[in-house]
Amino acid sequence: MSDLDVRPAAITDLPAVVALLADDPLGAERESPDDLAPYRAAFRRLADDPNQHLVVAVRDAKVVGTLQLTVVPGLSRRGTVRSIIEGVRIHADERGSGLGTQLIQWAVDESRRQGCRLVQLTSDATRTDAHRFYERLGFTPSHVGFKLAL
Amino acid sequence: MSDLDVRPAAITDLPAVVALLADDPLGAERESPDDLAPYRAAFRRLADDPNQHLVVAVRDAKVVGTLQLTVVPGLSRRGTVRSIIEGVRIHADERGSGLGTQLIQWAVDESRRQGCRLVQLTSDATRTDAHRFYERLGFTPSHVGFKLAL
Repeated sequence: MSDLDVRPAAITDLPAVVALLADDPLGAERESPDDLAPYRAAFRRLADDPNQHLVVAVRDAKVVGTLQLTVVPGLSRRGTVRSIIEGVRIHADERGSGLGTQLIQWAVDESRRQGCRLVQLTSDATRTDAHRFYERLGFTPSHVGFKLAL
Repeated sequence: MSDLDVRPAAITDLPAVVALLADDPLGAERESPDDLAPYRAAFRRLADDPNQHLVVAVRDAKVVGTLQLTVVPGLSRRGTVRSIIEGVRIHADERGSGLGTQLIQWAVDESRRQGCRLVQLTSDATRTDAHRFYERLGFTPSHVGFKLAL
């Protein structure tokens, strides 16, 4: 396979990124790839925030993966800065190619560059394949993730 | 009991907040209440970030609780803004008083004011009392929380 480039997402990547978010068993019900307006507003807000890093993985000029890395300062653990990974998606053609590993490795490396001492993420309890994937990469499933929809 | 006030933490609250972080089975090993320098640096960074809300609960001029609310924009779920609750601590004298419920309710109300459609948090798998508490407040334990120390 040709080389992979992980770079900040541009507004022109938005249709491809939203298509990735929607091409997922859980995302299919939640996303609206035919109406990009809410995504454009969210993109601008992310682009204006220095603690937000929305990236795409590109191979042969095609967006094949995405994730969002958020840098979160905090008091606990002696003022530890942590990062949170959200919205990890890999194009169907690339699953099993090692791209997921490369994207998470990018996020871990970037977290280190940003001075983070902890990287965290939550994964839906039904995504058991994803859980094995994160454990192979050294993550510990030490927490329960709670959500409340408003 | 007299009235409770939930307000943004001030730098003068820092010793009391760090004492709360340290007065906890997990926090005892992680915090350094005798050396506030790293906490002061973290406090300034939080204060400069409009998406960060570090608050204290105060009763009779005494800090009896704290939490950190982070507002996180994102593309997924049609550009849903979510909030993340971290660092929830209740003074030992106040446990069972309903203060935890009031603090989380504050965080939920503030999340709504900030336009969030989702509130999330992770809780160490060993904190089973906390898990029951969050479920009573309507949170769903739908996710597994992974962490990687750097």
